[in-house]
Amino acid sequence: MIIVMQPGAEKVQIEGVESKLGEMGFSPHRIQGVGRVVIGAVGERKVVFPTGLEVLSGVEKVVPISAPYKLVSREVKGTSSVVNVGELEIGGSQIVVMAGPCAVENEEQLLTIAHQVKAAGAQVLRGGAFKPRSSPYSFQGLELEGLKMLDRARLETGLKIVTEVLNPQECELVADYADIIQVGARNMQNFSLLREVGRTGKPVLLKRGLAATVEEWLMAAEYILAEDNFQVILCERGIRTFETSTRSTLDISAIPLAKELSHLPVIADPCHSSGTWRLAAPLSQAAVAAGADGLLIEVHHKPSEALCDGPQSLTPEKFSRLLNSVSLIAEALGRSVYIGEDLEAGGGL
Amino acid sequence: MIIVMQPGAEKVQIEGVESKLGEMGFSPHRIQGVGRVVIGAVGERKVVFPTGLEVLSGVEKVVPISAPYKLVSREVKGTSSVVNVGELEIGGSQIVVMAGPCAVENEEQLLTIAHQVKAAGAQVLRGGAFKPRSSPYSFQGLELEGLKMLDRARLETGLKIVTEVLNPQECELVADYADIIQVGARNMQNFSLLREVGRTGKPVLLKRGLAATVEEWLMAAEYILAEDNFQVILCERGIRTFETSTRSTLDISAIPLAKELSHLPVIADPCHSSGTWRLAAPLSQAAVAAGADGLLIEVHHKPSEALCDGPQSLTPEKFSRLLNSVSLIAEALGRSVYIGEDLEAGGGL
Amino acid sequence: MIIVMQPGAEKVQIEGVESKLGEMGFSPHRIQGVGRVVIGAVGERKVVFPTGLEVLSGVEKVVPISAPYKLVSREVKGTSSVVNVGELEIGGSQIVVMAGPCAVENEEQLLTIAHQVKAAGAQVLRGGAFKPRSSPYSFQGLELEGLKMLDRARLETGLKIVTEVLNPQECELVADYADIIQVGARNMQNFSLLREVGRTGKPVLLKRGLAATVEEWLMAAEYILAEDNFQVILCERGIRTFETSTRSTLDISAIPLAKELSHLPVIADPCHSSGTWRLAAPLSQAAVAAGADGLLIEVHHKPSEALCDGPQSLTPEKFSRLLNSVSLIAEALGRSVYIGEDLEAGGGL
Amino acid sequence: MIIVMQPGAEKVQIEGVESKLGEMGFSPHRIQGVGRVVIGAVGERKVVFPTGLEVLSGVEKVVPISAPYKLVSREVKGTSSVVNVGELEIGGSQIVVMAGPCAVENEEQLLTIAHQVKAAGAQVLRGGAFKPRSSPYSFQGLELEGLKMLDRARLETGLKIVTEVLNPQECELVADYADIIQVGARNMQNFSLLREVGRTGKPVLLKRGLAATVEEWLMAAEYILAEDNFQVILCERGIRTFETSTRSTLDISAIPLAKELSHLPVIADPCHSSGTWRLAAPLSQAAVAAGADGLLIEVHHKPSEALCDGPQSLTPEKFSRLLNSVSLIAEALGRSVYIGEDLEAGGGL
Repeated sequence: MIIVMQPGAEKVQIEGVESKLGEMGFSPHRIQGVGRVVIGAVGERKVVFPTGLEVLSGVEKVVPISAPYKLVSREVKGTSSVVNVGELEIGGSQIVVMAGPCAVENEEQLLTIAHQVKAAGAQVLRGGAFKPRSSPYSFQGLELEGLKMLDRARLETGLKIVTEVLNPQECELVADYADIIQVGARNMQNFSLLREVGRTGKPVLLKRGLAATVEEWLMAAEYILAEDNFQVILCERGIRTFETSTRSTLDISAIPLAKELSHLPVIADPCHSSGTWRLAAPLSQAAVAAGADGLLIEVHHKPSEALCDGPQSLTPEKFSRLLNSVSLIAEALGRSVYIGEDLEAGGGL
Repeated sequence: MIIVMQPGAEKVQIEGVESKLGEMGFSPHRIQGVGRVVIGAVGERKVVFPTGLEVLSGVEKVVPISAPYKLVSREVKGTSSVVNVGELEIGGSQIVVMAGPCAVENEEQLLTIAHQVKAAGAQVLRGGAFKPRSSPYSFQGLELEGLKMLDRARLETGLKIVTEVLNPQECELVADYADIIQVGARNMQNFSLLREVGRTGKPVLLKRGLAATVEEWLMAAEYILAEDNFQVILCERGIRTFETSTRSTLDISAIPLAKELSHLPVIADPCHSSGTWRLAAPLSQAAVAAGADGLLIEVHHKPSEALCDGPQSLTPEKFSRLLNSVSLIAEALGRSVYIGEDLEAGGGL
Repeated sequence: MIIVMQPGAEKVQIEGVESKLGEMGFSPHRIQGVGRVVIGAVGERKVVFPTGLEVLSGVEKVVPISAPYKLVSREVKGTSSVVNVGELEIGGSQIVVMAGPCAVENEEQLLTIAHQVKAAGAQVLRGGAFKPRSSPYSFQGLELEGLKMLDRARLETGLKIVTEVLNPQECELVADYADIIQVGARNMQNFSLLREVGRTGKPVLLKRGLAATVEEWLMAAEYILAEDNFQVILCERGIRTFETSTRSTLDISAIPLAKELSHLPVIADPCHSSGTWRLAAPLSQAAVAAGADGLLIEVHHKPSEALCDGPQSLTPEKFSRLLNSVSLIAEALGRSVYIGEDLEAGGGL
Repeated sequence: MIIVMQPGAEKVQIEGVESKLGEMGFSPHRIQGVGRVVIGAVGERKVVFPTGLEVLSGVEKVVPISAPYKLVSREVKGTSSVVNVGELEIGGSQIVVMAGPCAVENEEQLLTIAHQVKAAGAQVLRGGAFKPRSSPYSFQGLELEGLKMLDRARLETGLKIVTEVLNPQECELVADYADIIQVGARNMQNFSLLREVGRTGKPVLLKRGLAATVEEWLMAAEYILAEDNFQVILCERGIRTFETSTRSTLDISAIPLAKELSHLPVIADPCHSSGTWRLAAPLSQAAVAAGADGLLIEVHHKPSEALCDGPQSLTPEKFSRLLNSVSLIAEALGRSVYIGEDLEAGGGL
């Protein structure tokens, strides 16, 4: 940590900062510059910003040197982590595809889609039983009934289940049904929720918040690891920018960056970020080319009747085609994608 | 709602949209343009976007015409609402000032600050007992002990209490101690929490999310009103932009805009938005000049020892001076600010 | 400047950085931290970022300590500058109001508006003869004819003229007609243009770019001052953010911040930033309350027939009312606004 | 174009809008909704927003239906355009790689790098002779001398030359030396410059502005096509967002989107967008996977001594490796990248 003094700071102010640093367990190193004094604070950084030093008399600013995260950091664990979901490995050489509807609407809808995405090659079924909706008048999910339908879909297809939890009180319930618990973008800094999903011990898929920096995203993951749950999968799903021609802006750079800073696997959600199925294939290809360990894709057999997010859902046929193109990219990079039947070619259900 | 068809959309596609609109309870009005067909959908808008129409064959886009919020809308209730906190009115001609530390740290700290802000003229004491912190290793608040200290500060000073709740499970507990329950920026779309604070029946201070549009902010308020709790105070606290010289960007336009679109009172938090006490006074003046009904100000008697957010806290003396300048602005606009002693002039504690 | 080495950087890498710093005229001060080495570089900062040090082996990042601007900095000149436009002072205790149409459309339009804004109290007439338009098919301005009309309006009313220049080649021509030359937001980093307007020796109104940080804005001003032209007025006109309910987001914090970092006067443009006349009055009040030295307001006698930016133009009557409310704010802060006739009360033309 | 009236707009207001539409050459179609009236305007859209209708009494908002660009639109020209630079095709099945230093520094530097990027497989040499720098004290380019060095590099290597122009007055000069003229991000809405580069008749590489929407970027291209110059290559180089861990955010979605909306070729600049060579390879792979027709890469043989942008420059060896990985992605998609020697394997100079 570096403390930059104001130009013309007085001796007593400089000594005040040094003395405060001493109390905080740092040893201060003063550098007399041309225009001002700068103080380097040596010691293990345990404090988090702001530190209190910023308001001392004569201080202009305090500059952090080390990152605030510990357990998620690649400096602490140099090898990439693999999250195990039963026999499925996320973060290994195979790229894992999670697919399904935005919301669980009814048993027939869910089972139809589950069989189709399974046939096409997906390994995990997504589907929301608890839905965060910006309007109180929108469909809010089937809740427990939805979880039971996901359970039945797992039994019928063998797919793993990823589903979202909204409320700390429901973590245990969701953990009973899910193979992977999802924390949505709006809840990325819902710290009560992060702690509770951490305590379930289940693998957690942590979406990046719409306005969260990569550092804040990693700090949110740190909350889960701090509960002794190291099974965290990061998910880049787009950030909010001034551009309005897409729903949000997929921050493609965040994928290699998060993998450089952290040892956790990183997947991408190209459907939510763009808000249109038209961009799902090029963005999925790009995400895998940038190093993503998996994809989260919205698939609906009747997008125009979906209770939420229809415009960004692919039909099973388009999903099947997307898997084929993504697979070619993965192979070019020495990785692989599991591919099932070609639904477009009429091999579907 | 307007449905814009693609150029060259076929008759059967156009009829498909019209038939779907019929099923949804709208009557369709077709307009044959030069390059394309546009369909106006007449009827009460109950659906929320996306509507499912976006994915119909031949549809280019769907344009909303009416706002999605109802109960918070000034179209529904034309007169400005006043939130009553005991005898205190928020949204009337007097501008209400809420002040206090970021976090409740201990009884002595809280009572000292409470007496000082009371003396200077504040009417509500702020202070966090549950703190949302981006690091799991930061101080997380005194919880129940903190609430009890707030209660004691109320008894001693007569100030009303505003304090934050993080978790739906703790809403009842916080409601037992708070006069106004605060929902923080990070939780603006924590819909479980919004519903629970709505159900307490207590006045709610709803901060705007860092990346929330004004429309989303009003929709979050709608969640609370939909629980039959009309006592909502909106709080603009800065949005996240590319500018890094302030912690966030106070969206000053959002204050008159939210008051134009909605009947709810709007206050501003100039400390969180800028991240520095240096800008607290000019931003407070600006907020009141733009029509704010109140201010939320961080005050700490020893900012360099504050357990959180010291750099953006004012000393009681600076707070007293700020109240004086804000009061002059308020009077210029025919409003008022309650002013106590002049702490700077040595009349303080 | 601080050079942060990677954890585990080797001795030879550290010495490489120190040796390079020596070549660059800095004396290096090494601090051995717990996890890594940090090197302070002492000396006059002449280099601009990036410095070349970033790519040296073992370097993690380079942190600037001093600001890159010199001539515009309040560290260099502690007293606020006043820009003199004839007998008019910008940056003094009187708040200067510049008003007029977005574009000069024809002589009758310009003279009508000029007389009206003069009557209401404006001291400077704005009006574009060269218009930057996002479409090549939009009205691009009357060019030389427009400049001549501005000249005639000056003669008839005694108002000073501010008008925009788009092209380095036209700087001399515009300087012949304008009292203040405007550089628009889109051209804030058109460095050829900045140099040329600097060389004219005329006062320059420099709008902040839509995506420019306060630091970049001050650096753009530095280009003009570096041509020995110290007559620069900064103009905050809104930045681009995710919020779509206003055309851009007036960065109210930038006004006090630019005045703290720099000695130059700062004015605000509330019409362009919001895109609607409805917000012009509250935003003008807020800007003055935050410390703005002037306002730039769009006024049109027939907004619905304006060739550009009608929706954000005030009628002369509304402008007159705005001046009255702004004047009350200014007086509350010990400043003043020149007020003419009350056009609303029927005293107008 | 759709005109949305305010709820409760009166008959005379509605007729006023319809009459104004008639004057503008549109035929109005009134739709009586439940809460308000909406008017569809049928006719060729020649007006650009705002239209003047926004300020008519009773009007709430005006919603555009068609895009404002014509010549660049895929609606006008359905097939993808190929820009021919001599025998080189940009926008065909081969992905074109442009590489070289940020700035031309001296002849030795330029020729060394030119030979190396040629050897590795690049087809176009980039290098700035006129440099836009945020500080007036930074190196501003070698100007004419730099152009002559680029000419010599072309003669020696056979590479095509792309170089930036900053000033309308220098367009002819730059056109004499360049095969492709670059318009930088900061000048994307420098309309005088766009017109002049259009008039040279040379191929133009148009970078997207830091805060430009995809629509504004296409409108900037429209300026060039409107001068009868259809040889435009779009270049996505990152947009400015709140994220600070990269210099800007590569908007990967803009690549497929611009190709869907327009017929022009689109390339990507992964170095400027991220600000670090570490992300150059994954972002190049992602851009090609998303459909980019080319790449613009910074290469410097001694990055730590580069006069600008060293941290984001690759060494020739790293560039050679990048070409290899990108080539595998291209082939997976049925496209190709020209590959020369493997400089990493010691086959270099």
